[in-house]
Amino acid sequence: MELFYSRDIAGGICRLDQDESVHCAKVLRHRTGDEISVIDGCGTLYRCRITTDSPKGVEAMVISSEEGWGSHPYRLHMAVCPTKNNDRYEWFAEKACEIGIDEVSPVIGEHSERRVFKTSRIEKILVSAAKQSLKGAVPTVNEPVSVKEFIKAHADSSALKLIAYCFEDENTPRRSIKDVLAGNESEEIVILIGPEGDFSVAEAELAMANGFIPVHLGDSRLRTETAALAAVSAVYFCR
Amino acid sequence: MELFYSRDIAGGICRLDQDESVHCAKVLRHRTGDEISVIDGCGTLYRCRITTDSPKGVEAMVISSEEGWGSHPYRLHMAVCPTKNNDRYEWFAEKACEIGIDEVSPVIGEHSERRVFKTSRIEKILVSAAKQSLKGAVPTVNEPVSVKEFIKAHADSSALKLIAYCFEDENTPRRSIKDVLAGNESEEIVILIGPEGDFSVAEAELAMANGFIPVHLGDSRLRTETAALAAVSAVYFCR
Repeated sequence: MELFYSRDIAGGICRLDQDESVHCAKVLRHRTGDEISVIDGCGTLYRCRITTDSPKGVEAMVISSEEGWGSHPYRLHMAVCPTKNNDRYEWFAEKACEIGIDEVSPVIGEHSERRVFKTSRIEKILVSAAKQSLKGAVPTVNEPVSVKEFIKAHADSSALKLIAYCFEDENTPRRSIKDVLAGNESEEIVILIGPEGDFSVAEAELAMANGFIPVHLGDSRLRTETAALAAVSAVYFCR
Repeated sequence: MELFYSRDIAGGICRLDQDESVHCAKVLRHRTGDEISVIDGCGTLYRCRITTDSPKGVEAMVISSEEGWGSHPYRLHMAVCPTKNNDRYEWFAEKACEIGIDEVSPVIGEHSERRVFKTSRIEKILVSAAKQSLKGAVPTVNEPVSVKEFIKAHADSSALKLIAYCFEDENTPRRSIKDVLAGNESEEIVILIGPEGDFSVAEAELAMANGFIPVHLGDSRLRTETAALAAVSAVYFCR
């Protein structure tokens, strides 16, 4: 199924941006009168009829719309520390979008090697992943913040808050993410995934002091991006 | 933890191949008398003391060994059709190894676009993924066969056999992979994942006639490699 993406849908009129217009009118040679499918990135699929087929700016008239198109029955916010290699984070974002997430927050941990993170590429990847996996909603990507800032910002959140903490010690008795998900009905879930060097003890303690439940992802030792996707899969299969 | 890989461990003597020897003696500058950890790829971790530190061929004396090191409580064989883009299959293999699989079979479906598949690169990737995720066993990779050949070869297998079939029709009532796994105790599991164009009806019918249970991976529309990894995650979390 061929999908276009537009943030400019209002009053029954849908406008495609330059890139999408070129793809629609030049590459796919759609003409005035053709019907196209457009997602707004917020969860709605629109069926539209083209009224202007210029590669500079395609305009279409909305015929019908379907809310919550390709949606999932939970709201998942993944806060994941940047990986040393950017490709691995982009890979995580693409796969997580296919399976089902709503929000991505790059968070910088005290043990993070990479402390700079550009969100623009991830946003592009998420748009094409949403189109490819037939979802009306494109996950939002937040600007990077420190792990501690992220924890404080979610201190009052009523969501099910989990932190995947690797080190096992008497201060942090961890439960399996599967068991925690099975024992909780919350539709809103926030999961913190640490850097290669794991969270610092201070970060883990701050998280727990603010309602984050320490969980483990089973016995396998997973890379940051694999752990993040495994957590997304656990929510997908357990919700 | 620094791990070496050797298929040549016998009579208390462990020999590293050229690549591993260079890495051990030249790159990491290990010398006679040093202790190293070596996996045999079959599940055992060996602690060894170097007796010959030549980059051409390191030899070491086995001090102790630990069987089933980094093992998982099931045996998972993933039969996955090649993806159009090789990187995606390699990515699947790496991540699946981290999470936990035992055998990978590239299978060529009637709707497969790619019908040629080289296993050598995948084997290298699996060795480094096993080392990286601290597993003594390296998943085996089989030579490609057709989907129908694979199904026939497993006709008499007592394993829990699943086929992730996308098309829904009255002939193939599919159940959720999670429910099927929850309702079955088998430790040996075989999962068939189709190409972008899905299995042919003939392939799906042959699979079911040979004891494969048609399953779905939830409501999301997943790429071949994402579906394969989601299935691996489902087994990991449900076993």
